[in-house]
Amino acid sequence: MSAVDLNSDLGEGFGRWTLGDDEQMLAIVSSANVACGFHAGDPVSIRRTVRSAVAQGVSLGAHVGFPDLAGFGRRNMDVPDDELEADVAYQIGALRGLADAEGGVVTYVKPHGALYNMAAVDMRVARAVAAAIADVDRRLVLLGLPGSMALAAAADAGLATATEAFADRAYTPEGRLVSRREPGAVLHDADDVARRMLRLVTEGVVTAVDGSDVAVRADSVCVHGDSPGAVAMARRIREVFDAEGIELTAFAPAGSGSAA
Amino acid sequence: MSAVDLNSDLGEGFGRWTLGDDEQMLAIVSSANVACGFHAGDPVSIRRTVRSAVAQGVSLGAHVGFPDLAGFGRRNMDVPDDELEADVAYQIGALRGLADAEGGVVTYVKPHGALYNMAAVDMRVARAVAAAIADVDRRLVLLGLPGSMALAAAADAGLATATEAFADRAYTPEGRLVSRREPGAVLHDADDVARRMLRLVTEGVVTAVDGSDVAVRADSVCVHGDSPGAVAMARRIREVFDAEGIELTAFAPAGSGSAA
Amino acid sequence: MSAVDLNSDLGEGFGRWTLGDDEQMLAIVSSANVACGFHAGDPVSIRRTVRSAVAQGVSLGAHVGFPDLAGFGRRNMDVPDDELEADVAYQIGALRGLADAEGGVVTYVKPHGALYNMAAVDMRVARAVAAAIADVDRRLVLLGLPGSMALAAAADAGLATATEAFADRAYTPEGRLVSRREPGAVLHDADDVARRMLRLVTEGVVTAVDGSDVAVRADSVCVHGDSPGAVAMARRIREVFDAEGIELTAFAPAGSGSAA
Amino acid sequence: MSAVDLNSDLGEGFGRWTLGDDEQMLAIVSSANVACGFHAGDPVSIRRTVRSAVAQGVSLGAHVGFPDLAGFGRRNMDVPDDELEADVAYQIGALRGLADAEGGVVTYVKPHGALYNMAAVDMRVARAVAAAIADVDRRLVLLGLPGSMALAAAADAGLATATEAFADRAYTPEGRLVSRREPGAVLHDADDVARRMLRLVTEGVVTAVDGSDVAVRADSVCVHGDSPGAVAMARRIREVFDAEGIELTAFAPAGSGSAA
Repeated sequence: MSAVDLNSDLGEGFGRWTLGDDEQMLAIVSSANVACGFHAGDPVSIRRTVRSAVAQGVSLGAHVGFPDLAGFGRRNMDVPDDELEADVAYQIGALRGLADAEGGVVTYVKPHGALYNMAAVDMRVARAVAAAIADVDRRLVLLGLPGSMALAAAADAGLATATEAFADRAYTPEGRLVSRREPGAVLHDADDVARRMLRLVTEGVVTAVDGSDVAVRADSVCVHGDSPGAVAMARRIREVFDAEGIELTAFAPAGSGSAA
Repeated sequence: MSAVDLNSDLGEGFGRWTLGDDEQMLAIVSSANVACGFHAGDPVSIRRTVRSAVAQGVSLGAHVGFPDLAGFGRRNMDVPDDELEADVAYQIGALRGLADAEGGVVTYVKPHGALYNMAAVDMRVARAVAAAIADVDRRLVLLGLPGSMALAAAADAGLATATEAFADRAYTPEGRLVSRREPGAVLHDADDVARRMLRLVTEGVVTAVDGSDVAVRADSVCVHGDSPGAVAMARRIREVFDAEGIELTAFAPAGSGSAA
Repeated sequence: MSAVDLNSDLGEGFGRWTLGDDEQMLAIVSSANVACGFHAGDPVSIRRTVRSAVAQGVSLGAHVGFPDLAGFGRRNMDVPDDELEADVAYQIGALRGLADAEGGVVTYVKPHGALYNMAAVDMRVARAVAAAIADVDRRLVLLGLPGSMALAAAADAGLATATEAFADRAYTPEGRLVSRREPGAVLHDADDVARRMLRLVTEGVVTAVDGSDVAVRADSVCVHGDSPGAVAMARRIREVFDAEGIELTAFAPAGSGSAA
Repeated sequence: MSAVDLNSDLGEGFGRWTLGDDEQMLAIVSSANVACGFHAGDPVSIRRTVRSAVAQGVSLGAHVGFPDLAGFGRRNMDVPDDELEADVAYQIGALRGLADAEGGVVTYVKPHGALYNMAAVDMRVARAVAAAIADVDRRLVLLGLPGSMALAAAADAGLATATEAFADRAYTPEGRLVSRREPGAVLHDADDVARRMLRLVTEGVVTAVDGSDVAVRADSVCVHGDSPGAVAMARRIREVFDAEGIELTAFAPAGSGSAA
């Protein structure tokens, strides 16, 4: 029998503003990437998401980003290493403060947006992120893109790592994500997406844009939390997994040896 | 032989801007109230201050404030309880993240500026601060004004507390601080201040504005870090304490049972 | 034949986050209170709202607030006069910069949230707001609560003023708003609200919570932009006004003598 | 007889934090590049600087930057065109609001830090800055580096432009600034710098790092406002200019046809 993790970006409101439906997503996923205040997330809304995650037994990850609220952390920033390392440590700590207050444990870290993309291809950024995580707590797991610099740097730093596939994204025959600028990069059909993720988990392949099968290894499937239809798509994936006997297992559960 | 703690507000720069001379103050004091990013302190400058404090064996306290960078946390804000509690937990956590990264331990919390003043007299605010601290870690000590609501609420919440006197402030015959709006509220003569603090430690009294002696109990003496002459005044107090055999002892040392 | 203005709070998104449906509201109202970046509104989303308002001939007002993004400007802040005056001037200017870029004109100012409430009852705050507006441009009109300190201070400062009624709020027999903490303070039935506003415009009265008629004078009717059903309620009011021959007239049109 | 402008970056404090000595610099320079709140400058401190500039007849320029307070606007950011244009228009407007309140006029714009550097070499960024300025007010002058994309884009957009030389920077034989990473890039001797700027104004050349003379055309000489010795260096340049009969003339005076 197979097992896999489902993760989603949550806690991405800010003050008066909400984004996505954290309550519903937390009933579906096994891991929550929680915003830490730099790209999204004020303390009280973060805490609310953490509380629900703890109540539902969902693993907590620090979704660390650039200090860019207006840009939602999606704009590349040229942040010197020491500043980036301090930013990441600050964010992990802030989320752990709120997790402590709710009896939860932060067990992993996933960079967000532009930081995720830069850490995937720029070894300097990847090393800064990995160094910050290792400095704060070597038991934290890094969640990232298979084959990314982020994963390599984390492994170099002695961190455990986990890989993720994106449920609603098309893949090239080489196993890379099709750029969002290309037509067909983002998939919208929940049934189709669920079937693709089923193959990913059971066969280790996804159908690429050219129709070929491409091997993709992933410890976790990322479902988006903020787009229209996100909950429906996540629910459909979960239903298909449940029906096929695929167990949802957090790659970094709070009670495991990897817990912080 | 007597012992007392010396504390100072540090890490109060932000990005390009510096305030006070943390390096010099850290060679003098035994406890550092470190800004956590809401009223001052960007991650990289906080981390620098934490690193120096750890290197010099100075205790680390979270100097938590209102989210008001432009007002340096000195403007009263009417923040609902749940938001305030989350803000405090977030800030404690953020500082602990940077302390973890530097091998340090945050052992106490001191509210800053308007939050300090409001928590001294408003039980609702005091209870929110105490609840947040207790929620994050019951081993954290609250540092506050003798007789303040903050101390009472912290004790009610099961937290250990410590009291402080202000080296450069005049006291009323009732043992309260003379308002900054009154003439003579702030003392500038380092020798005079050092003598006053010596009496405080050895006799448990300070000379009030009317010339009478007033009993003031304090586990710690607060020396300001950001005014001109701050370092000279702190150094003079330290010299007098050293000469009189008064030992500097952190009220919440990293290695103690109260450590987080 | 009667005439009145309809105003709504718009431009209240921030970056990735949206609030309300500005496009639809701008097709209904005659005056847009546009957020200026302190409580809500990043430059690009403000500009988008301004562009639509200009295209539809809707008057532009600066919706100035406290610097409190996390609290949406709804938390009271004790801001010294000179800081508050500068904050207000800065926000008016910022909106005018974006209005200039879109060929529009800012013709009035309405304080937002906690600043609105404080300026209604605290003459010090009211005077600071009025002074800032007068300093920037004496042709700007202040929109406020009838009988408020804000209006009195604005008149003292030589500014033109306009008054507003709140469509979805219950009134006391004395003509004040029923506190949001009281049951029945907020009205939800669009037909009922539209009938109430019709009486307000044609008879100068609204039905108070005790069933009595109370005189309320208002140059403008405020319809909320961010609650569920806001657009439907605004549209219903507009339909009733249109059907009864009540003309929608901005109290501070761009082309008038009062224009900036 | 020759004439030239002297400009300096001012208003770069934020809240509790100050940077440089604006009062002293405003007694020396003819043009003040005033921070607009994105990289530095809270409203009340900006207003204070504007007030002094107006009192001393110093021209006001909007020193627009990236929204990056922690990084002081010195970190490259990949901001989409529409966002950048709105950011620039917002900042110009905000400064104009405070200038209006003080009876002053903003007559020019100079990008700051990373935005200055990016607009110098990246035509996309340069065009966005120029478009924003032109959208707000076509009478505003752009101040920039000779030969930069920023100047070319501004000219394309129909804006008047002015060029600047940097008093304390070494030049390559090609007339470019020596990178700050190179030794000798920044000059510290006030007398030497003053003599160099005298040659620049009277002969149109500066001595390059290899000892050769290189032609540099500049309408304005930039003196830094925030480094130790900045005031002394600016004063020395001013003394030498005064002694040699070089008149200080703002390139964009408030009373000129180019005034906003």
